[in-house]
Amino acid sequence: MKIEVLKENLKNGLCVVERIVGKNLSLPILDNVLINTEDNFLSLSSTDLEAAIKFWILVKIIKKGKAVVPAKLLSNFVSLLPNEKVILEEKNQSLTIECKNFKNQIQGFNPEEFPIIPEFNNLEYLEVDNEKLCYGLSQIVDIASPSQSRPEISGIYFIFSKNIVKIAATDSFRLAEKSITMEGVSAKGDVSFILPQKPAREIINILSGKEGRVKIYFSPSQTIFELPMKEIQHPAVQITSRLIEGEYPNYEEIIPKKFKTKLTLRRDEFLNQIKAAALFSGKINEVKISVSAGAKEVEISSKDYDVGESHSNISAKIEGEAIETSFNYKFLVDGLLNIKSSEVIFELSKEDGACILKPVGDASYIYVVMPIKAT
Amino acid sequence: MKIEVLKENLKNGLCVVERIVGKNLSLPILDNVLINTEDNFLSLSSTDLEAAIKFWILVKIIKKGKAVVPAKLLSNFVSLLPNEKVILEEKNQSLTIECKNFKNQIQGFNPEEFPIIPEFNNLEYLEVDNEKLCYGLSQIVDIASPSQSRPEISGIYFIFSKNIVKIAATDSFRLAEKSITMEGVSAKGDVSFILPQKPAREIINILSGKEGRVKIYFSPSQTIFELPMKEIQHPAVQITSRLIEGEYPNYEEIIPKKFKTKLTLRRDEFLNQIKAAALFSGKINEVKISVSAGAKEVEISSKDYDVGESHSNISAKIEGEAIETSFNYKFLVDGLLNIKSSEVIFELSKEDGACILKPVGDASYIYVVMPIKAT
Repeated sequence: MKIEVLKENLKNGLCVVERIVGKNLSLPILDNVLINTEDNFLSLSSTDLEAAIKFWILVKIIKKGKAVVPAKLLSNFVSLLPNEKVILEEKNQSLTIECKNFKNQIQGFNPEEFPIIPEFNNLEYLEVDNEKLCYGLSQIVDIASPSQSRPEISGIYFIFSKNIVKIAATDSFRLAEKSITMEGVSAKGDVSFILPQKPAREIINILSGKEGRVKIYFSPSQTIFELPMKEIQHPAVQITSRLIEGEYPNYEEIIPKKFKTKLTLRRDEFLNQIKAAALFSGKINEVKISVSAGAKEVEISSKDYDVGESHSNISAKIEGEAIETSFNYKFLVDGLLNIKSSEVIFELSKEDGACILKPVGDASYIYVVMPIKAT
Repeated sequence: MKIEVLKENLKNGLCVVERIVGKNLSLPILDNVLINTEDNFLSLSSTDLEAAIKFWILVKIIKKGKAVVPAKLLSNFVSLLPNEKVILEEKNQSLTIECKNFKNQIQGFNPEEFPIIPEFNNLEYLEVDNEKLCYGLSQIVDIASPSQSRPEISGIYFIFSKNIVKIAATDSFRLAEKSITMEGVSAKGDVSFILPQKPAREIINILSGKEGRVKIYFSPSQTIFELPMKEIQHPAVQITSRLIEGEYPNYEEIIPKKFKTKLTLRRDEFLNQIKAAALFSGKINEVKISVSAGAKEVEISSKDYDVGESHSNISAKIEGEAIETSFNYKFLVDGLLNIKSSEVIFELSKEDGACILKPVGDASYIYVVMPIKAT
């Protein structure tokens, strides 16, 4: 293999594929990147066996071929090169890199030992605007939590119906759901899958800030998220992942349809007062939200006998009845951080039931949180 | 105690004094800040018994007194308050904090239990421009390294003579020295002390970016670095520290007076090529610098049999003889990062002797580094 590539393009591609490369002691081949020539493109691939990333760069190919070299080493080295043409040449599993006044050689491995990243023959896909997908995922991805006993809730649930995709995540204490309008093709009937949390995070990290529509391919056991190149009909980057088996809980059942009290609050001020009360919330992180009958302010308070106590008031639009409910402050902070609007609605339910936090003026996102049960 | 203070001023002071407050399990009183009224000022004090920080704020005093409360808790809480007046009131070792729509109470401790931070009666001091001191310290502070067997080289050596203060640090593999012109008062004869590394770092962190002259007080066992307020004849902040006992090595002896080869190099390019070679430098971090007879470029190379090898060339002004010397790349990187000039001078010595790295156009800083001995 011998190719000519711009340093900046090679650096960008390596920064993407090295993301899932770690130190894999039992299978050291996974520490590497597979470099391959495909038509006029150089492809860079990496995998941790659960997920894989593939990135294409338009290059000048002098001689076709493959190379497998340590991903972090190559990425760290290329980032130090001057912004010039780079010549990569593979001979006998050794990769030579020449760029201006640098000439380096990296010892590689046999490309046959690199795991095959599965591809699909199924050409059907659904399409979502990339920025909407990344933003939506970022609003819910951290809610999912690793669960050995219930692996299905450790991932992000995607459910496509007609031209809407809903994504949801829960850790059984709270739940977040985002609705995103699909572009182009509609789903034929309801289809759904559970994507593990780690590749969901990689989709956000790799695709955020990029224009275009993401194509989502999926089989019963696997999915590919693919962003095409801007000007050429060719994929720019693919994130492939296995899917989580099992059935996602029917979460819509727990979303309350009625509320006892509805508060409309300034988001930043509410977040700040929750954080202040959190400092005095003791071992169970308990922060109390109180609304007196006829009040125009909500009281936020906490008390820890050894440390001290906190009381603050926030002006609010209050609908419904007087109420007093306690929450784990972490759950409220997480929910508020996932909402960017200047005002939020907080709907409190009767009898320790689930409560809803949502942005004002955006029906696409809801955050359901369980209160701390009164003892 | 009851006082009125602006939130921003209180927050700034707490951010400074909380720096040396950690979780001290054996002496929990050290987790606290001592709040005291002094004339028209509120003073905030913290200590880890080795060093202490004291910060003054101009406030409105309603009732004199003292309070001792957890430093991080108070600091975290105050930073969440709105930018308004804050009223602090101490009663029965409990501190009430009122600010706009917040009213909090923090459980405190008996001020009598707070360790006394030693003060001097000696009013003699030397003066250094604060920004020069902070920048100079930042160029050498990380060179010192904890040493049980030779505690004297674990600190920063200050030696004052007439109107110059030299500060130096070494870890026995390399040495850095900075000369700073003193302002105002001259030293009467040579005086010197060894400041521990941690308070030296705190001086940089706390005082950097602030205008004015630092007053340096010292006794045989202790020193105070004091920055005055801008408009009032009063200290703004004091960093007090014990001094390290023992005699600092006569380091000037090891600074070579002659060189075999003198290189003048562009700093950023040199640093980049060292970093690239570092990736192939193996377990002993060995990077080779080679100058051939009559060459106009310096070659930088490294080789690790399992990983690969690196060769790069950097154009340089070369004076003196051909030479080949190896260095631990970390020591070269550290030295280059401490130099901000666009060009550096690298003086290489004969027979594995100490080498000197220094900025072009600035005689105030030298970095002496030992090569890796040829085996």
